[in-house]
Amino acid sequence: MKRYEVLADDLAASIAAGQLRPGDRLPSVREASKDRGVSPSTVFEAYYLLEARGLIEARPRSGYFVNQAAFPHPEPHASDPLAEERSVEVSELVFQVLGLARNRAVVPLGSAFPSPTLFPLDKLALSLGKAARGLDPWRTVEDLSPGSAELRRQIGLRYLGAGCKVDADEIVVTNGAMEALNLCLEVVTKPGDLVAIESPTFYGALQALERRGLKAVEVATHARTGIDVAALAAVVERHPVKACWLMPNFQNPLGSLMPDAAKAALVALLAEREIPLIEDDVYGELYFGARPRPAKGWDKSGLVLHCSSFSKSLAPGFRVGWAAAGRFARDVSRRKLMSSLATPVPIQEGLSEYLRRGGYDRHLRQLRQALVTNRQAVLRTIAKCFPQGTRITQPEGGYCVWVELPAQIDALELHRVALSHDISIAPGHLFSTEHRFTHHLRLNFGHPDNPRVEGALRTLGQIAKALVRQGGAA
Amino acid sequence: MKRYEVLADDLAASIAAGQLRPGDRLPSVREASKDRGVSPSTVFEAYYLLEARGLIEARPRSGYFVNQAAFPHPEPHASDPLAEERSVEVSELVFQVLGLARNRAVVPLGSAFPSPTLFPLDKLALSLGKAARGLDPWRTVEDLSPGSAELRRQIGLRYLGAGCKVDADEIVVTNGAMEALNLCLEVVTKPGDLVAIESPTFYGALQALERRGLKAVEVATHARTGIDVAALAAVVERHPVKACWLMPNFQNPLGSLMPDAAKAALVALLAEREIPLIEDDVYGELYFGARPRPAKGWDKSGLVLHCSSFSKSLAPGFRVGWAAAGRFARDVSRRKLMSSLATPVPIQEGLSEYLRRGGYDRHLRQLRQALVTNRQAVLRTIAKCFPQGTRITQPEGGYCVWVELPAQIDALELHRVALSHDISIAPGHLFSTEHRFTHHLRLNFGHPDNPRVEGALRTLGQIAKALVRQGGAA
Repeated sequence: MKRYEVLADDLAASIAAGQLRPGDRLPSVREASKDRGVSPSTVFEAYYLLEARGLIEARPRSGYFVNQAAFPHPEPHASDPLAEERSVEVSELVFQVLGLARNRAVVPLGSAFPSPTLFPLDKLALSLGKAARGLDPWRTVEDLSPGSAELRRQIGLRYLGAGCKVDADEIVVTNGAMEALNLCLEVVTKPGDLVAIESPTFYGALQALERRGLKAVEVATHARTGIDVAALAAVVERHPVKACWLMPNFQNPLGSLMPDAAKAALVALLAEREIPLIEDDVYGELYFGARPRPAKGWDKSGLVLHCSSFSKSLAPGFRVGWAAAGRFARDVSRRKLMSSLATPVPIQEGLSEYLRRGGYDRHLRQLRQALVTNRQAVLRTIAKCFPQGTRITQPEGGYCVWVELPAQIDALELHRVALSHDISIAPGHLFSTEHRFTHHLRLNFGHPDNPRVEGALRTLGQIAKALVRQGGAA
Repeated sequence: MKRYEVLADDLAASIAAGQLRPGDRLPSVREASKDRGVSPSTVFEAYYLLEARGLIEARPRSGYFVNQAAFPHPEPHASDPLAEERSVEVSELVFQVLGLARNRAVVPLGSAFPSPTLFPLDKLALSLGKAARGLDPWRTVEDLSPGSAELRRQIGLRYLGAGCKVDADEIVVTNGAMEALNLCLEVVTKPGDLVAIESPTFYGALQALERRGLKAVEVATHARTGIDVAALAAVVERHPVKACWLMPNFQNPLGSLMPDAAKAALVALLAEREIPLIEDDVYGELYFGARPRPAKGWDKSGLVLHCSSFSKSLAPGFRVGWAAAGRFARDVSRRKLMSSLATPVPIQEGLSEYLRRGGYDRHLRQLRQALVTNRQAVLRTIAKCFPQGTRITQPEGGYCVWVELPAQIDALELHRVALSHDISIAPGHLFSTEHRFTHHLRLNFGHPDNPRVEGALRTLGQIAKALVRQGGAA
């Protein structure tokens, strides 16, 4: 990590911990340079990074201040799961809750997708049309799994930018990250095996475990720094964990980001015990500060199966993802052949064409800026409208915040009432096998700030306050 | 079935049985009309159909004759499997054999795909480009499983043409038929369950069973009429069969076509025992006579899960298939959400656009005509060049023939020698759990007749003859 990144992280931690509070003035560049023993330009770079991350703001002639919207509420509590082996039965609830919300009339605060209007669909359409018109017919036979050589080369290049050396040969193109994750899980487990996951964890992971007849053990997390590696060490000591499925970067639903040292420790711990790590990194490109390195970047034993996609960063609906599956690459490629043979060839070629032409990084910069802006707006409204005692994450990437409401509130009840107002949320119940997080919810800030989203958040706050009163009375 | 179809089938059976032999003259229209008690126009229609199927040819002023290429060899023997429960372990061999053949230098007689040059890729590219440019961004969120409403409506219309009433609501769009088949299998079985399959059967089905940890029981087939329903009845009587996976239309590898009466009996048998039928109908549109009705057409209990795709009839490389899954439709849709969320939206929209514009039926007529022509050429060459004792199917749809060579030949040895001559074949070993069909092979006639294919068949014949001599000497 560079000096200014260390300084920025240090200041961010002070803000998160409440030592620096919204409205507080930061030391001047000269003061900070002297205090910290770094050059003024390092301080400038750090402040610039924190500004990009939405944590501080520059006021003309006055200096830098902690953003008013930064941490209006304290962080949610660290999770404290039972850390025992549990069967997984959450699919039915997930389908019930999410199935109801898939229409345009509903404000999609519970959605897993950002607004499709944030993506360069016009340019993608041109690339797709061009690639399809110029398609060599024999590609339809040759571009079976592991996928188009050119697309895999382009994906390999992205890894370089993320501080990872990944050979194109270990990349298998899939139908979105979901298929990649499923195939990886299939390769490293047998039904009945035990898999370590975060508490809370993405419900898609729970469904995948349930579908394959796997057991889960949930591991404690911190809302800002993700999984507690010491807690994981204790779990693998006590339980026969056959694989981990984790999101080190901008975890869903927490938005947490593991520090580099924790990632290194994680990879070392699992290497020592020969436990494969399925790394879900679908939000990795949606950072507000610097590109976080995937855990894969520390992998020397080929045990990390890194999965990602273009669905959330570039091309929603194209359903192109991949696994960089280390020593399991051949097995994953074969499973892909068996499960769906290949990812559509024109789609692979269209994405290759888009990536070759350039413009992806420019799009990503715009997308990240839009997400930061949305996040600030959403946090501001939550700060104003949600009941006292609300705790909330301040994710530095992705497009989800995790909200811990006062304990009297049942998030499923909140979901039902909200839906009657045409507002969806993702209640905390979906994110655990332990019937935890019953007063938590995941909110999506990936939809451009507009009166509709703000109105929905206000309504949600009113409903939550009413539920607190009812809960208090009961 | 119409009168002329009955008459045509009757004559085709006489040809297949060798009662009418290549070069034989058929009765004149007047004679046949008198003999059979049908109108002359019915005889005309029947002869016309047989000509389209490549079985007879008109010679000016002389009448109709059995085609010289029709049944130059007798049909392969009916299969006689052990009909016992067996574990499935064929994947490794399949990958070894087929993985070697995926490059353009190899003449793809072992390929599972027809030549991509037979498809309207230009028109598809235009439809795809147009659909992508006009895509409503919100479709990327709404067209998750079960898939685009318009595409499902178009697929529903195709069923009408095949004599099936299928509601668009029971159709789930998938990534090719392979994903559809896998999802259906997952919904109707648990690991360890027993599934009845044909002997021989498509290796992709064997791989799917192996992947899911299922056992297989192989059922006897006839090379022309497919699975022996009486044999299947005996199997389900003796064994706890939880599902069947069958190809009533143009079975892979046999090319067999179940008569309507057999399909009706099959569906009735399985309904009586509440056994789901996974019907793989990917070649259904590639008929040379009349569109054969899928077994699904007799289904009244919702137990038939009919799977097909556009991969072999219209759009190779697009990877769009579907399941019409009867009473299991909701479960299949949910599995699809869990396994890969959705089929790429631009691809779904592009196909919808193509189908809406019309032209699919015209393309299919051309494609079928090309396949019939290829078949005749391939059969003619095999007749000339293969060793005595060779038996071969005369499929009336699809693009594969099944060849039974003299018993001394080991098809894996043939495969190895052929590959050293840059020719691929699909050895019979791939199509059974019982180490049967060791002197059988599947040959693909879906590649336009040209000196390269003919040369490869001649070489193959020479290799086979040499192996017979070696086998005879050993």
